[in-house]
Amino acid sequence: MSSSDIFIGETIGTAVLILLGCGVVAGVILKRSKAFEAGWVAITLGWGFAVLTGAYISAPLSGAHLNPAVTLGLAIKGGIEWSDVPVYFLGQMLGAVIGAALVWLAYLGHFHAHLTDREIVGGPGAQDTVAADKQQATDAGPVLGVFSTGPEIRNVAQNLATEIIATAVLVLAILTQGLNGDGKGLGVIGVMITAFVVVGIGLSLGGPTGYAINPARDLGPRIAHALLPLPNKGGSDWGYAWIPVVGPLIGGAIAGGIYEIAFA
Amino acid sequence: MSSSDIFIGETIGTAVLILLGCGVVAGVILKRSKAFEAGWVAITLGWGFAVLTGAYISAPLSGAHLNPAVTLGLAIKGGIEWSDVPVYFLGQMLGAVIGAALVWLAYLGHFHAHLTDREIVGGPGAQDTVAADKQQATDAGPVLGVFSTGPEIRNVAQNLATEIIATAVLVLAILTQGLNGDGKGLGVIGVMITAFVVVGIGLSLGGPTGYAINPARDLGPRIAHALLPLPNKGGSDWGYAWIPVVGPLIGGAIAGGIYEIAFA
Amino acid sequence: MSSSDIFIGETIGTAVLILLGCGVVAGVILKRSKAFEAGWVAITLGWGFAVLTGAYISAPLSGAHLNPAVTLGLAIKGGIEWSDVPVYFLGQMLGAVIGAALVWLAYLGHFHAHLTDREIVGGPGAQDTVAADKQQATDAGPVLGVFSTGPEIRNVAQNLATEIIATAVLVLAILTQGLNGDGKGLGVIGVMITAFVVVGIGLSLGGPTGYAINPARDLGPRIAHALLPLPNKGGSDWGYAWIPVVGPLIGGAIAGGIYEIAFA
Amino acid sequence: MSSSDIFIGETIGTAVLILLGCGVVAGVILKRSKAFEAGWVAITLGWGFAVLTGAYISAPLSGAHLNPAVTLGLAIKGGIEWSDVPVYFLGQMLGAVIGAALVWLAYLGHFHAHLTDREIVGGPGAQDTVAADKQQATDAGPVLGVFSTGPEIRNVAQNLATEIIATAVLVLAILTQGLNGDGKGLGVIGVMITAFVVVGIGLSLGGPTGYAINPARDLGPRIAHALLPLPNKGGSDWGYAWIPVVGPLIGGAIAGGIYEIAFA
Repeated sequence: MSSSDIFIGETIGTAVLILLGCGVVAGVILKRSKAFEAGWVAITLGWGFAVLTGAYISAPLSGAHLNPAVTLGLAIKGGIEWSDVPVYFLGQMLGAVIGAALVWLAYLGHFHAHLTDREIVGGPGAQDTVAADKQQATDAGPVLGVFSTGPEIRNVAQNLATEIIATAVLVLAILTQGLNGDGKGLGVIGVMITAFVVVGIGLSLGGPTGYAINPARDLGPRIAHALLPLPNKGGSDWGYAWIPVVGPLIGGAIAGGIYEIAFA
Repeated sequence: MSSSDIFIGETIGTAVLILLGCGVVAGVILKRSKAFEAGWVAITLGWGFAVLTGAYISAPLSGAHLNPAVTLGLAIKGGIEWSDVPVYFLGQMLGAVIGAALVWLAYLGHFHAHLTDREIVGGPGAQDTVAADKQQATDAGPVLGVFSTGPEIRNVAQNLATEIIATAVLVLAILTQGLNGDGKGLGVIGVMITAFVVVGIGLSLGGPTGYAINPARDLGPRIAHALLPLPNKGGSDWGYAWIPVVGPLIGGAIAGGIYEIAFA
Repeated sequence: MSSSDIFIGETIGTAVLILLGCGVVAGVILKRSKAFEAGWVAITLGWGFAVLTGAYISAPLSGAHLNPAVTLGLAIKGGIEWSDVPVYFLGQMLGAVIGAALVWLAYLGHFHAHLTDREIVGGPGAQDTVAADKQQATDAGPVLGVFSTGPEIRNVAQNLATEIIATAVLVLAILTQGLNGDGKGLGVIGVMITAFVVVGIGLSLGGPTGYAINPARDLGPRIAHALLPLPNKGGSDWGYAWIPVVGPLIGGAIAGGIYEIAFA
Repeated sequence: MSSSDIFIGETIGTAVLILLGCGVVAGVILKRSKAFEAGWVAITLGWGFAVLTGAYISAPLSGAHLNPAVTLGLAIKGGIEWSDVPVYFLGQMLGAVIGAALVWLAYLGHFHAHLTDREIVGGPGAQDTVAADKQQATDAGPVLGVFSTGPEIRNVAQNLATEIIATAVLVLAILTQGLNGDGKGLGVIGVMITAFVVVGIGLSLGGPTGYAINPARDLGPRIAHALLPLPNKGGSDWGYAWIPVVGPLIGGAIAGGIYEIAFA
């Protein structure tokens, strides 16, 4: 694979991953969406099929990593060159930002309808700005949740542990079963296996932190959230942002190590 | 593939697609159905398996496009002859009308029970025709929803954008991974991949417009809705009808273009 | 395949199909079950994976028809000998009765807890036998529903039409894509395809009649319901029993005919 | 396969199985989890994909039994040596305890938030210790349910029967279709089949006892529950513990016997 194939493949594939992945959260969270309140099974299936779609599209070009933790695990395993790693990372981050922007575009009217409920509550020229601000804070939470993950119980060690464990399972499954013939990325059956594994991780380990399990999946959309024009969108919670980056990278490295020790 | 195989395959396959696809909406929306209020996961899985079933049945004859946007994308890619395109379109449109008529037949009693609630509300000879008309309008909405898509927030640019984005993802996934050996249509694994991609698109991008992502899927059943005898069925919303035709065709063409630039 | 392999395979496979299929209805309907009120998605997935499990187990022996409508369609297509048809039918019917008896065994305590709520309502020695009888009638409905199908709106022509349409889709999908190399039954991928098709038919066309789409699936458990000792179980609704037998057989024959005309 | 490969594979694979399997129950049961009250479909899909993930990871090393009942069935069938059976059992039990400890780690904050609701109810220094103890007992039930199974209606013969029937279906499906080329364990397609079979068994036969269908799945986490430091965790219900061990072993042996008689 050439560097340009890797870059283009990862950019397109991660954009599709984030478009469908953050898209299902938008559909379930935003008011006046047909998927409103469709529940946790909808969200976890949605993210699984987001992986499936993005990975199938990018597999012929880049091997469909779509996730720096997967790239790191594969580099430790020796499947890809370390010199290719920055190209993967760059494509993944760019794709994630583009994907989040596409979600913003596809759900633009719904973001506005959702976020401008503030006006409905407070009313134009309303005096009760405290109630309106409180409402805004409540709404800003879910809207950031369309883009990035956040913990239900905020605790650095606990949140890191959950992301490390969940990502190690993902990368170990990919290293043992997901790879195509040349060992550089996912094959046809490997993509389907990986998608179901991601549904499983979401159902089983997504409860505490929302399962970033992918630094690009969390950081890219968080950047997009900070940049995109949305009314009353609230802050981007940068204090938490390092955990879904560092945790998955540690998890991927651990999986690479386990693979080398037990399976190689 | 002969023209007659293409025509027959697309007619039967699209009929099955629409029978099962509009069927799941009927089951979830119509009162006194066992699937009543089964939710968004039921609807998106139902449409996904509708694609799977219709595509498996038609794949040996026509390559299972079942969607003018897919046919357009494949023609741009060079997988099929441009001269075959009208045959595909014709079969798809005919099949979609037949499929919608079969839904009408399979749920006939439920359509009547659902729509004649007006009599229950207004009562025979009731004076309160305003309330009854309002009730009729409310009910007519869902019943058109069994056949065709409609936006939750009506905005031409926004609705077009959502349909274009969603269809581009679908067609790009088919062009990169869904095709069989001769490149003219879907193969056995490709059908399964495509079905899961459709579930994912529904979950993730169906919220704003109901994801037509297929001109025949929307226009065929809308024609059937206009023609079929149903009590109190309301209008067929022809003002919106061009969006789920034009949007998906643009999306399919964009996907064909992306494929030619990045993957060919 | 020898007659004894066919008979044993169909008996075991249909027993597993009915055990898991009627089992999921028991789990969702009966009080004090962990699956209580798990909804229509649970029921349709449960029946789909029931087909998958029963078909995988029986495929090496009998080709996994498990359904007289499938056997009939295959005989019309010429995949199996007409002389083998009675052996298939016999195994399917016997297996269906055994499977229903196993559901009774696996959920015995829950049937009793569910049905003897009558005592709770009426109380021992209660005078209000009218209320108690009414309660019994209400409960008997669901309990028969564990075993056999019943329409939400009772109308012979309508109910027949729905069963014919749904079964024709099932058998056409099997004839075009589900068969193994020798054309006598389902192959490994064919079983998975068929299972997803059954989930789709359930979601999309199960609303009106509960989708028997298989004479043995309905008649066998109805016989078991009539024979098994259950308190307050109510009648077995024999007046409806012929529809889920005749409808699916007509649907299977139509599918065989369509196959011969359009696909052979 | 060497004994060390078997031991390591079964330990890692069963740890992943229990991490994801008990993890989904934790996510659905524990307060302040994003998966809270996600329902029975979430739980059964979660366990199915837990099997898929654990089995894919361990298949290259040990053949992915992950279940003493499967090992027993395979030994009766003659797929593996009886002398390897204790190595399988040991790895499965060790892995199950490790997996349960990882669930404890991943959900630690949520276990504490869930279990220390006692303080919220009783309040610090509250006099109403009866109400607080009652609340504790109510909460302890669900928390044990994260780790081990328990019947909804407690009846030895009934509970044994359900576990025997459900496990026999699982092991029979594995023996007939799940095995890889050398017949010692699961292959790539076999893992996917088995995962869907487990979803089906959960939906259809999980209602009465919570479908242990695997002695290690129940006993390992029960030991972990007894050992791990959790506030107000309540007892480990050792009186029931033998049923999900003995029942599945009988079921696995019956499946091995049926296989030898009908399929070999």
